[in-house]
Amino acid sequence: MAQFKYSELFDRDGMAESSKIPGTAEDIEAAFYDAIARADIDALMALWADEEDVVCIHPGAPRLIGHASIRASWETIFERGGVHIRPVQLHATHNLMTAVHNVVEEIHRTETAQQDMHVIATNVYVKTPLGWRIVIHHASVAPGAAASAQPSAAMLH
Amino acid sequence: MAQFKYSELFDRDGMAESSKIPGTAEDIEAAFYDAIARADIDALMALWADEEDVVCIHPGAPRLIGHASIRASWETIFERGGVHIRPVQLHATHNLMTAVHNVVEEIHRTETAQQDMHVIATNVYVKTPLGWRIVIHHASVAPGAAASAQPSAAMLH
Repeated sequence: MAQFKYSELFDRDGMAESSKIPGTAEDIEAAFYDAIARADIDALMALWADEEDVVCIHPGAPRLIGHASIRASWETIFERGGVHIRPVQLHATHNLMTAVHNVVEEIHRTETAQQDMHVIATNVYVKTPLGWRIVIHHASVAPGAAASAQPSAAMLH
Repeated sequence: MAQFKYSELFDRDGMAESSKIPGTAEDIEAAFYDAIARADIDALMALWADEEDVVCIHPGAPRLIGHASIRASWETIFERGGVHIRPVQLHATHNLMTAVHNVVEEIHRTETAQQDMHVIATNVYVKTPLGWRIVIHHASVAPGAAASAQPSAAMLH
């Protein structure tokens, strides 16, 4: 994966020099979790596609649709500071225009650390004229610790 | 939406006459929920892309990766019969090769009916040489009744 630093896109005042974000879908995913760790709402929101139907679902929460609702939710989360999330166990399918990622989110935030659950996220990126952008982030809670390998086919509904 | 009946693809013995499934991503979504309602495991599994990284997440459950695990989970669910799910409140983004759907799943199964939660699902379809196919079904539980309109930007993490 190319080394991509989202911060390089910003000048001294923190404003984006260009709305075009370079890199692959993997780079955008790295920039997404980086922005969450830094509680950088502008950097975070710049990564979403310019569509009204963008969707964000926080773990255990109803869905949010559109930039205004999504921005407001992250602003509220960031009031307590950034959230350090390491996406691991990536499973992906992709074509020329879309990348579908599913990851386990390792969340490092003391007050929310729980051993009896983990978070799974589906992140979908589409290639737009301005670069790869997020169209959906769907996170949800699953019981137990994340399996280190593929889970068994036990009853799960 | 074109009227598409998945059952038309099958001959008298229930075997697929062709592995090519016609129709749009919307048709495949309709066929997906139709197969779940009829507890038709073969019809259901035929709708998934022929990739190892297909992902299925049942509400409140860990993720399943690959056809064998996904098939086994639905077979277990179908032991109690089909599940009648009506996908409503579709929000979608799509391009020529991918359709990203997010829906509220209205689930009609007596023993699981709960008023204090609802289920949200992200379904992603990709266009393959054999037609549109599912690459991910990610369902999760959200508190309360589903909002009939766009939810407010309240704190949701």
